[in-house]
Amino acid sequence: MKILPSLFRLASLDLSIKGRQLPPLARSITVSRAASSKGERQRWGTTKKTRSIRLLPWEIMADPKIEEALAPLRAAVKEQGDLVRSLKQSGAPDLDVKKAVAELKTRKKILEDKELSLIPNVATFDRAKMEDLLKRRFFFDQSFAIYGGITGQFDFGPMGCAMKANMLNTWRSFFVLEEQMLEVDCSILTPEPVLKASGHVDRFADLMVKDVKNGNCFRLDHLIKAHLEKLASEKNATPELKAECADIVVKLDGMTKDEMANILKKFNIKAPLTNNDLTEPIEFNLMFATQIGPSGLVKGFLRPETAQGIFVNFKRLLTFNQGKLPFAAAQIGNAFRNEISPRSGLIRVREFTMAEIEHFCDPKDKAHPKFDTVRDTTLMLYSACNQMDGKSAEAVKIGDAVDKGLVANQTLGYFMARIHQFLVKVGVDPAKLRFRQHMSNEMAHYACDCWDAECLTSYGWVECVGCADRSAFDLTQHTKATGVRLAAEKNLPEPKTIDVVEAVPNKGAVGKEFKKEAKQVMDALATLDKDAVEDLAKQLAETNFYTLAVDGKDVKLTKDHVEVKKYQKTVHVEEIIPNVIEPSFGIGRIMYAIFEHNFKTREGDEQRTFFSLPPVVAPYKCSLLPLVNNPDFAPIIKKLSQDLLLLDVSHKVDDFAGSIGRRYARTDEIAVPFGITIDFDTLKDSTVTLRERDSCQQVRIPLAEIPDIVKDLSVGRRLWAEVESKFPKQGEVKE
Amino acid sequence: MKILPSLFRLASLDLSIKGRQLPPLARSITVSRAASSKGERQRWGTTKKTRSIRLLPWEIMADPKIEEALAPLRAAVKEQGDLVRSLKQSGAPDLDVKKAVAELKTRKKILEDKELSLIPNVATFDRAKMEDLLKRRFFFDQSFAIYGGITGQFDFGPMGCAMKANMLNTWRSFFVLEEQMLEVDCSILTPEPVLKASGHVDRFADLMVKDVKNGNCFRLDHLIKAHLEKLASEKNATPELKAECADIVVKLDGMTKDEMANILKKFNIKAPLTNNDLTEPIEFNLMFATQIGPSGLVKGFLRPETAQGIFVNFKRLLTFNQGKLPFAAAQIGNAFRNEISPRSGLIRVREFTMAEIEHFCDPKDKAHPKFDTVRDTTLMLYSACNQMDGKSAEAVKIGDAVDKGLVANQTLGYFMARIHQFLVKVGVDPAKLRFRQHMSNEMAHYACDCWDAECLTSYGWVECVGCADRSAFDLTQHTKATGVRLAAEKNLPEPKTIDVVEAVPNKGAVGKEFKKEAKQVMDALATLDKDAVEDLAKQLAETNFYTLAVDGKDVKLTKDHVEVKKYQKTVHVEEIIPNVIEPSFGIGRIMYAIFEHNFKTREGDEQRTFFSLPPVVAPYKCSLLPLVNNPDFAPIIKKLSQDLLLLDVSHKVDDFAGSIGRRYARTDEIAVPFGITIDFDTLKDSTVTLRERDSCQQVRIPLAEIPDIVKDLSVGRRLWAEVESKFPKQGEVKE
Repeated sequence: MKILPSLFRLASLDLSIKGRQLPPLARSITVSRAASSKGERQRWGTTKKTRSIRLLPWEIMADPKIEEALAPLRAAVKEQGDLVRSLKQSGAPDLDVKKAVAELKTRKKILEDKELSLIPNVATFDRAKMEDLLKRRFFFDQSFAIYGGITGQFDFGPMGCAMKANMLNTWRSFFVLEEQMLEVDCSILTPEPVLKASGHVDRFADLMVKDVKNGNCFRLDHLIKAHLEKLASEKNATPELKAECADIVVKLDGMTKDEMANILKKFNIKAPLTNNDLTEPIEFNLMFATQIGPSGLVKGFLRPETAQGIFVNFKRLLTFNQGKLPFAAAQIGNAFRNEISPRSGLIRVREFTMAEIEHFCDPKDKAHPKFDTVRDTTLMLYSACNQMDGKSAEAVKIGDAVDKGLVANQTLGYFMARIHQFLVKVGVDPAKLRFRQHMSNEMAHYACDCWDAECLTSYGWVECVGCADRSAFDLTQHTKATGVRLAAEKNLPEPKTIDVVEAVPNKGAVGKEFKKEAKQVMDALATLDKDAVEDLAKQLAETNFYTLAVDGKDVKLTKDHVEVKKYQKTVHVEEIIPNVIEPSFGIGRIMYAIFEHNFKTREGDEQRTFFSLPPVVAPYKCSLLPLVNNPDFAPIIKKLSQDLLLLDVSHKVDDFAGSIGRRYARTDEIAVPFGITIDFDTLKDSTVTLRERDSCQQVRIPLAEIPDIVKDLSVGRRLWAEVESKFPKQGEVKE
Repeated sequence: MKILPSLFRLASLDLSIKGRQLPPLARSITVSRAASSKGERQRWGTTKKTRSIRLLPWEIMADPKIEEALAPLRAAVKEQGDLVRSLKQSGAPDLDVKKAVAELKTRKKILEDKELSLIPNVATFDRAKMEDLLKRRFFFDQSFAIYGGITGQFDFGPMGCAMKANMLNTWRSFFVLEEQMLEVDCSILTPEPVLKASGHVDRFADLMVKDVKNGNCFRLDHLIKAHLEKLASEKNATPELKAECADIVVKLDGMTKDEMANILKKFNIKAPLTNNDLTEPIEFNLMFATQIGPSGLVKGFLRPETAQGIFVNFKRLLTFNQGKLPFAAAQIGNAFRNEISPRSGLIRVREFTMAEIEHFCDPKDKAHPKFDTVRDTTLMLYSACNQMDGKSAEAVKIGDAVDKGLVANQTLGYFMARIHQFLVKVGVDPAKLRFRQHMSNEMAHYACDCWDAECLTSYGWVECVGCADRSAFDLTQHTKATGVRLAAEKNLPEPKTIDVVEAVPNKGAVGKEFKKEAKQVMDALATLDKDAVEDLAKQLAETNFYTLAVDGKDVKLTKDHVEVKKYQKTVHVEEIIPNVIEPSFGIGRIMYAIFEHNFKTREGDEQRTFFSLPPVVAPYKCSLLPLVNNPDFAPIIKKLSQDLLLLDVSHKVDDFAGSIGRRYARTDEIAVPFGITIDFDTLKDSTVTLRERDSCQQVRIPLAEIPDIVKDLSVGRRLWAEVESKFPKQGEVKE
């Protein structure tokens, strides 16, 4: 359990990994070519003919038989959702609402598991097979493995690293460049007061218990879950016990520390392996602590998110933008969280790359100037309402969602559409992407609306991007902590006359009496707000004394020291604390989803697996393959390689031995989308074969034209279909 | 003092920041146009006419008067250099050699300071003015300033961040892509045993002392230096005292802990401000420590360099490269060092970005296949020999340097040339770049040769890139620590027959006797080397017993358990531990040097400062400036912006009020190299004005052609001179 889950964007990811590994998920359904008309599904330019098209989960759900099976579960959710609503409306006690919400979650989870289990397993997904490929071709693997490794840490090898760099560059073009955002690159090591203000020092924690004898630590929810699942699976488990265990497991996410402690006692749970007693639950802060400087006195943490670096630079950024709102800042960088028991591969790790955007805007005007450009984008929205009513996610145009008030404002809606576009561009399957709205009980108190982009994987629906309206929370917190006003000025529609009440010190008298501390006294006077000054005026008038707090000390002031002036003035601007809309991307999670969504097996050969990554993120854009080892090919390869370099097209020269088919298979494994083969005809007529990875189709193209064509294909300026139709086909080669 | 400075690449940077701030340095010398012929100085395509050309320091030195002034100092260095040589040759005691080397360093430093002071101050460099611009336009600034800030930590604002991203992308194209390197992205948090093996846990330390009462820490060399400089500057300081102080200050770098402790005592140095006593010198490890996981038992550090992540992945990378040598791996990432007292802005910081290359090759074959492509590149080499002889750096072709044995091998030479090319490409002034060879006393024991690329800045010569031949040190250390052989196989020129001696366990007997531990016993037998097996055979024969160490325990084996087999076999490969050539780039330091080398003042207007960054690293490639605020311009600006986006050209639309001259000045400040102005003529004839930043020259270009032209200019595919000659000139606008 997170103590305050929704305060922390990636913390809240926990909630959306829906527990156990699901039964093998439906991956894709090949349907007739006629059904392949939806533009959105054609992602990076392969022809309709050659791609298998997937049914979206919600299309499957439209099957009346499946709907029949789900109906009672939907009804059960809706019944409970209605109960929660009526409890809230009638102002029922908090505890009652909480219990009802926990039950609602249980029912939602049962419905969702059932939904997932009903997707037909046309193509089963074999995670072990995919992981084998990822490891074997070093996309990524466990860090420090030769030293035994550390859980929750991964190193990206050449393929993973190139893919990550391509993703981040795409992100930068798509968001920073296209939206003219202000990108920053801030420190990772963060002094304690910053994270105290943001709430992380006090509340960014998970519950754990320790083995009292050997000190081994266990994340409490994981421990309880494992224990109860084992109990329920034992031969002599009664149906009642099984039901109770299942019920608790499902409710764990929402439980308090005390509730979990009671479960520990009730089931007399001991430490695994040793069977020793366990401590009471302990709140374990998830930040890595260290000391900055040699004294050991300056405590610091590795940042748990990149966002705070943007907030503390707000004033500089506002100045850079010449004082104008709205503007967005962005940051790509690493963040750290000391997970108690990391697992699920790249999904729950101790060190990860994030890309975050903080869009600062007027709290009273969250319209977005470019909203009309995305108005017609259709997203799968899983609203809080649908979640309470037992309904599935629904396809809604974002324009309609904002108009109806389902999504809180245009800026939030604009970013949701852009997030969707970005994810699809880099290879997320739109059929496995939805936006889930936080229910009011999940949302931090300050947020007005929050939608998570979730990807369906073999671990269930995994939050990959959070998109929240965080109101003025962070800027307000840092203002309180530092006394530096993180605010902007807004032009008033017309000048306004306001009453000013000011405490004006008599500098001479203050200086004489307070000497060295005179400055602090005057500073303290200057920061008094209107009410405090009124109070000062009143007290001085009544008692001729006013007690002022100066750096924690009380100081007595008289009429000699200070005078209260009241006057009117005309102002043209008002000060506002901007609100923040925050899209926050977990890069590793998105990469993992992309791997799963693009893992393929070649038809008719179970052993030939590959990744159909879009060219824009593929590690290499093309391969150069001399048909055989012939010295006459070398100068052609060299020249071609140089020409591709000039166009910044990453490529791999593969002149290792082996049949061309085997070599294609090797480049397919590392997702190379295009292969250029140089053969004996090349020597005669200066043409080469260009092969596309997903379709295995080949065309013959003049050598001189190939660099530009591959460049265009790799950035999406040209589609394979175009190339295929323009140039003569090469007969299919037996691979 | 670094305990073992040269083991650690960036640690050794310390040595090359030559102490105090130098007198205002010569920045540039404007010479007649006729002198501007050297190709190397024309860096990114401005015409000869419009750029001021600098005299290289070594050209200045050719002035006979200056040479005359330096001659006695050169002689003094040479005399001492010869003494060091003869002491070494005659096998003199270590202490004597050490003392002589310290004196040599002193003399070298005096010579170097004199050299720098003699460069004529034609254009003085005003660091405060540059820093003001960097801060004002938020290139970078202190982190967490609203919380008081932390020394040695900086945040890059939009301009610094974009420049950094451009630099890293350029680096990636220039090295990773062009050389087909294997890029990885490894964990920052590193468990202790890894850094124990690399030597960092034991030896990556600086000396400090603490105020015994308040615990304040001081870096020992800084403290002594400040104290002695103060002492020497006092009125009553005798010439003897002054000389002694100066002498110590110069020798500090090479002093041991005890020597420094003696100086503390001799001068009775107390804590600054408090005047309290100080502790004895303490070795302070510069790594940030933390705990990984919740138990508090797994100690980890933030990596002090990225290199170790590559070494621990060596086997995976070798496999990825299909077992073949040579290959290079590369990594860009952050590293951390807990400096005792960070200073000098971006040059000594606690958190920094590095880009490192580890080129693995056969120890017996360090030829480089592409060496001939760089053979004629001229570098300024400041060899160890020259340093001992009191000579200056010399211009040498890298081909000659390798042929003569001055640079140890082709691969090292190849990378030095590539480093030079890269640095000049991103904006380092070649007139302020030299390669300094480590003298044998600076070099770690395992390294055969090491050259630092140093840039001349107002802080003196600063090491920005290290380039070392690290032999097999790191792989050997990790092999020892883990038992995992980090080695490669090399095909023998012809098959070889070798004698094999093998301890073959009798599995049945071992299993019966050692039960659970049988596997460990057999594993231990398998790892015995040839000598140990011979010894085993001998002992079994003599005593019928052999004592084998198994996981720290002694186990007794008899002839029943093990038999020694001797035979011959033919092998086609031999195992080698690759050597490593390591270029290591400090990105922040290079950026700082680029800022200094490109900081300019507009002729005739002291207040108009700007950065003449090469387009390839400039944060924005161009600005779009509507001449006045006219709605007719808006659609043109919008279309142009979209067209530039399609070509990935970063740009800034500047439609703020103000004269066009003021707006150019604003874009000059943030180094925008090209400005497109839309005016009323644009509405008539669809042409725009294109302005180049450094020359302020303007030409008139058709709107339709402008995106491609700016794209080409910004990646260096086209030079400004070409564009200027092709299109009609626009009359100079008063700015």
